Formats: sequence, structure tokens, C-alpha cells
Amino acid sequence: MGRTSPGAAARMAAVADPVIPQVGALMRQRPDALSLAQGMVSWAPPQAVCQAVGRAMVEADRRLDRYGPVQGEEALLEAVRRELTEVRGLDLEGSDLLVTAGSNMAFHAIAQVLCDPGDEVLLPLPFYFNHAMAIRLAGGVPVPVAAGLVPDPERLAAAITPRTRAIVTISPSNPSGLVTPPEVLAAINGLCHRHGLLHVSDEAYADFIHGAVPHRGPGRLPGSGGHTVSLFSLSKAYGMAGWRVGYAAVPRQLMGALAKVQDTVLICPPLVSQRAALAALEAGPAWCRPHIATLGQRRRQLIDAVAAARTGGQTLELLGPPDGAFYGLLRFPSGLGGEPLMRHLVLGHGVAALPGDSFGLPRAGGQALLRLSYGMLDASALAEALGRLFRALAVLQAAGE
Amino acid sequence: MGRTSPGAAARMAAVADPVIPQVGALMRQRPDALSLAQGMVSWAPPQAVCQAVGRAMVEADRRLDRYGPVQGEEALLEAVRRELTEVRGLDLEGSDLLVTAGSNMAFHAIAQVLCDPGDEVLLPLPFYFNHAMAIRLAGGVPVPVAAGLVPDPERLAAAITPRTRAIVTISPSNPSGLVTPPEVLAAINGLCHRHGLLHVSDEAYADFIHGAVPHRGPGRLPGSGGHTVSLFSLSKAYGMAGWRVGYAAVPRQLMGALAKVQDTVLICPPLVSQRAALAALEAGPAWCRPHIATLGQRRRQLIDAVAAARTGGQTLELLGPPDGAFYGLLRFPSGLGGEPLMRHLVLGHGVAALPGDSFGLPRAGGQALLRLSYGMLDASALAEALGRLFRALAVLQAAGE
Ligand SMILES: Cc1ncc(COP(=O)(O)O)c(C=O)c1O
Ligand SMILES: Cc1ncc(COP(=O)(O)O)c(C=O)c1O
Repeated sequence: MGRTSPGAAARMAAVADPVIPQVGALMRQRPDALSLAQGMVSWAPPQAVCQAVGRAMVEADRRLDRYGPVQGEEALLEAVRRELTEVRGLDLEGSDLLVTAGSNMAFHAIAQVLCDPGDEVLLPLPFYFNHAMAIRLAGGVPVPVAAGLVPDPERLAAAITPRTRAIVTISPSNPSGLVTPPEVLAAINGLCHRHGLLHVSDEAYADFIHGAVPHRGPGRLPGSGGHTVSLFSLSKAYGMAGWRVGYAAVPRQLMGALAKVQDTVLICPPLVSQRAALAALEAGPAWCRPHIATLGQRRRQLIDAVAAARTGGQTLELLGPPDGAFYGLLRFPSGLGGEPLMRHLVLGHGVAALPGDSFGLPRAGGQALLRLSYGMLDASALAEALGRLFRALAVLQAAGE
Repeated sequence: MGRTSPGAAARMAAVADPVIPQVGALMRQRPDALSLAQGMVSWAPPQAVCQAVGRAMVEADRRLDRYGPVQGEEALLEAVRRELTEVRGLDLEGSDLLVTAGSNMAFHAIAQVLCDPGDEVLLPLPFYFNHAMAIRLAGGVPVPVAAGLVPDPERLAAAITPRTRAIVTISPSNPSGLVTPPEVLAAINGLCHRHGLLHVSDEAYADFIHGAVPHRGPGRLPGSGGHTVSLFSLSKAYGMAGWRVGYAAVPRQLMGALAKVQDTVLICPPLVSQRAALAALEAGPAWCRPHIATLGQRRRQLIDAVAAARTGGQTLELLGPPDGAFYGLLRFPSGLGGEPLMRHLVLGHGVAALPGDSFGLPRAGGQALLRLSYGMLDASALAEALGRLFRALAVLQAAGE
């Protein structure tokens, strides 16, 4: 065509290239590669999901074919409300609920509603790349803050400017696997409240707790509803990534604007996916628990394998304690950039992982970072993948790269 | 909370309040109301859709549970490519394909990629409200152009400024039902090409042709692919609104930016809906034809009923010839605004329709407009709905309102 605005082109250029398709392209060149890159679990959704959708097909339930309510189906919203209050203990006073096609979409809607060109959103490092992309897309400025893996509220406070609109936390964290202690989330929430900021709490991994620190989202704090967004996803705990369902508790005074965004972008969440989600929520966190416990064993395996490699003389370490989600950040000496590092791993050694750069982590002091996901692999595949990874890193180290 | 930017708040305020939820709220107060307001058809999707999804549930097809490719599943993209080239005759040289969760989402993505604050997009009047909303959301300026129901390319040309980025056409039209002749679409496409603008052709109703004028989208023009977006939806012809699937042919040079938007907003279209869409496209336009022919009878009934009311002495008329989609614009003398008019119709007379205001049509000369949809009603319900409508308008006329 066809001109786009120079500004629009610049804004789009500032939206990072999605890293997942990049690693996917590499893996197609090396079909035997094992993936420590995917942000998914290996299990199937609850049987009740297949049954509910199968039944709707047999009964030719016409309600799935029609446009539905913007915020989501009444029955699903009711189930979400029960789950958020009874299971997660959220204080929904002052909140409204929104179902979206994946929880990323809710984050996008929040960014659209919140940001003007130049408005800032604080993203404690490491951040989830999609958050930065959504803020850029809205014309806002993602402000990475090196506040520590458990974000230090004082360092966040120091980053607040008159243009700051929100602080985002992710606990358990993608990519570090760290669980932020409840009192730290509470302190950040208080900070937001005092400064008139929104606290956006991404809890996609809320159920993935393997260590001693419990997860308690800031939405549990009495009176937090008016300044807190709590984001949840069925993609991870219920193995339903492809169904695209997430939900959010949002300050009621934002709901009007968010409904406009939803109506513009999606009209309504897909009805079949909402039906599936309802069945999943009825199975509930009790259904997820044994699956997540299995991941706890994979995490142990990862920690032990890294310890063994260190004992064997390799220089590498897992940051934090990776007590949540299904990720860990591995640090090792290397000067390679993210892209050549991915190529070396996938094409040279048949193992994929995501570079720290994707999560805003600056390489420093000759150290590189990789996010390792143990969500998709069984014990023997994980052992093989880690073996390949450590060999690949040994090769780098030997070459001084 | 929590401040939003004053600018963001103003931008959100400029996004129109969705009218569909408004009319929905009124109708809940009057459950016996008949709806001439809904932009949906009454038929169910092809049986093959239920079968394909039911089979995937029985076989517990795990591919539906995982994230898929950003642009859409390979098999679906292949079916879309076949349909666009073999059935619709598009020249896809220079184009790429994108599947979205409803075709509105593709329009939203285009607006995000195209617009900077102040950038203009020409919307021939009447426009589809969701287009105006998406442009506003992107910070752009929707510029309504009174170019005639069949948009006059010269009047569009006169509205082009240095800030213009695109011209949108909708044929067959929501809300007028008009089919824009192929040579007019070609002239507008040429205009876009000469001025370096994008031609966004919304063809959600491509298969809904009841008159003599055929539908030929501008994407058929040789060499148009580089400056033309052609939008299609499964919501209407296949009765699949709740499944949220649309697809677009887009200039290849926009695909990188559009993929970023899609990755940020949706990650990937819901896999179950893509499976359903594949089954629907395999049934194809031949499956849709008899259903659409039935709507042709409803259209006849609408035209005849309006003619009879005129013969009976009422002052009203259908604009255009409503030869496509399942809409018609009814004009009648009234000074009432859209909102009170809807209230009068729904609460007072048990019939719903959308006011012309929603589509950017200024009331003028004491005339009001209503969009009448005959998509959902069978012959007897349509007769009853039109009867109620004409009585409601007679009451207004008698009261001089
Ligand atoms: C922190 C975080 N939030 C949200 C998501 C996306 O969730 P959904 O699939 O519901 O859009 C992911 C997926 O990787 C994630 O890591
Ligand atoms: C002109 C037009 N385009 C697009 C759409 C929305 O289609 P979808 O359901 O695919 O988002 C509609 C629905 O009313 C429409 O009238």
C-alpha cells in the first residue's frame, strides 16, 4: 500500500518481535529438539471439559452459536465469582468481573484503558514480554525496574513519576519461578493505593506452588478491589491454553471502559470456550493439584541436575528459589546475545530455551540467562533436555563464548 | 483506584457506548419484545461443525488444548486460501492471511497498526459502529463522509487530507443493506492506490445477495493485494457468531505488525473454534445458499409490508434498495433521539430496532432512521414485529414526536 503513520510505524517497531514464533521457526529446522521453551503444561483438561462440550455438540445447543454478553456468560461469571471469593479469598467489594479470550487479552484491555502516549507502567524485572508489548501497543512506556527477583517496594517507589499509572506484579513469576511473599505484595499494593496507581497482579500461575512460600494475591487485601486488577488464566492449571479463556477482577469504575474495549475487540468471548471453562472451574483446583504435584517432582529434578552439573565443575546457577510456576532462570558465563544463543542451543544441540533478553534482563558482567520451562517434559525427556543443555553450555564455555 | 490519564479517559469517552448492550437491557424489561435489532441469523451452523468438534472431544484431540500458530492453524489457512481464491476470486498476490476471533478483531488490529493520534480513517455514512470504536481506541479519528448510500468516490476523494490513512467500505452494508456495485468498489480501490491509502473492505455479508447487483470485493482486482484488506466472518453466513471466527487477507508488508498485535491480544485464535471453522468452510457457500434464500423471502416481506403501510397512509420509506445482508434503513418523520426512540419501541410497543444515530447518521429535517434486521425472525414473527413497529411509529406521528 499504503502509508502507515511514521509514528504508528515507530510504535509498532517498539513492540518487541514475539520470541515464541522465533524459537518455533528454529525448532522446525531441528525436529528432534527438546523444548525447555514452552510456557505450557503437558496435561489434558479435565474430562468434564470434553464431556460438556461433547454434550453440547450432541444436543446441538444453539446458545453456543449466538453472540453472548460482553463480560461473559452469566453462569461462568457466577462460577468465577465463587472461585475468586471461596477458593482464592479475594475481596470483590469494588470489583467487577470480566471473561476474556485468554488472560493476555485482559491485560491488553487494561493497557488500552489506562495509557496515553508517554504514560508509564512499572514492570519489575524480569517482566513477561507480552505485558511490555501490550503497553507499547497502547502507546504507553513499559518501565523495567531492577527491583530484585522479589521486587523491593522501595525500589519500585523510587521509580514512580508523575506519568506512572500502574505497577505490574507476576507471582508466581514467569520467567523466574519466584513466589513473591504475601507481605511484599501487600506492601506494593499499599504503595499503589497511596500513589493512586493501579496494581495489576498477573496470577496465571496462582496454583503452581512447590515451596514453602504460599501465594496470596493482593486482591485478598480488604478494600483492595478499587485499585487492583487480578488476572487469572485457564491456560496453565487446566491445560487449556488452546481454548483461550482467562478472567479478571477489575476495579468497578474501569468496567465501562473495559467493556467498550471488549466490545470493539472481541464482542464476546467464544461461547464454546466459556462452556469448557465452566466445566473446568467445576472440577476446580482440587483437580489441578495432583498434576501440579508432578511438576513439583520435575522442579526437584531441575534443581538436582543443576547442582550435579556444578559439582561436576560447570559454572551455572539457578536464580531465586524457583518455587512456583514451572520455570527457572539459569545464569552462566557467556557473552552471546539471545538470538545466537538460541541458535546454538536448538540447531547445535537440539534443545530450546528462551534467552533472558526476552524478559528485559540486561546481560551484565559476561553473564547470560536462560528461562528453563519444565512444564511439558516427563522425567526422562527432562533429563535428556538438561543433559543437552549443559553440554551446549560447556561447549560455549570451552570456546569462551 | 487509581488515576487513568486524562487523555486516556477522554479517548475512552470518545469510544461510543456499545448500543447492543443498551437495547439488550431494555429488552430484559420487556421479555415479550420482538427483535429487529439483532445482527444475527437464526440458523445453526453446518452439522459438520458439531460433528467435527464432537469427534475431537470423543478422540480427546490434544491439539485443541495447546497454543497454536499466531496467524491460525495451517489447515484452516489453507482452506481460507482456497475459498478466497477459488470461490471469491481474490488476487492474493501481495497478501497474507490472518485468522482472528471474529472479524472485528482483525479490524481492531488494522486500526492499531495504522493509526497514530490524529490519523484519519474515512467511513462512508452510514458506518458500522464497531469500526468507529476501533479507530477511536487506536487514537485515530473516524471521519464520517456523507458520500451517499452507494459511496461516491469523488466525495470520498474530497475528504482525503494529509492525515488520511484508509477508506473503509462495507458491502453488502450494515446498516443499509445496500450492495455497492463492483465498479464503484473498484473506483474507491483505485483512489486508495493513488493516494497511498489502505482500502479496508468489510465483507462480513459477502454471501447475502438478494437483488441484481452482484458482490465483487475489491480484493479481486489484479494487483490490489498490496493496499487492500478484505475482511470475512463466519458469524453470519454460517450462523457461527458465538464461535468467534473471522479471517482477513492483508497486505503482506503489514503482516509483521499485525502478528505482533495478535500475539499481544490473543496469542492465537481458539483452536476449537478453528476446528469448527474448518468444517464450516468445507461445507462452503453452497451450504449457506438455501438459508440465505430464505432471508430473501423475509426481505420481500419487509419491502411489501413497508409498501402496504405507505398505501395505508403512513409516512415512511426504506432507503436504498436493501438488496444485501439482512438489513434495511427505515426513514420516517420524528424528532426523537435514538435513546428515547428505542425506549418507545421496546417498552411501549414490544419491538426493538437500532436508531440511525448508532451508525453515524445525523438526524436531519425532522426525519429519523431505524435499522431493521430481518435476520432472526421467521415469517410470522417478522409480520408481527413489523406490525408493532408501524403502530409504534403511527403513535409517534399522531403525537407529533
Ligand atoms: C505471566 C503470564 N500471564 C499470562 C499468560 C497468558 O495466559 P493466557 O493464555 O490466558 O493468555 C502467560 C502465558 O505464558 C504468562 O506467563
Ligand atoms: C459489517 C460488519 N462487520 C463485522 C461484523 C462482526 O463480525 P464478527 O462476529 O466476525 O466479529 C459485523 C457484525 O455485526 C458487521 O455487521
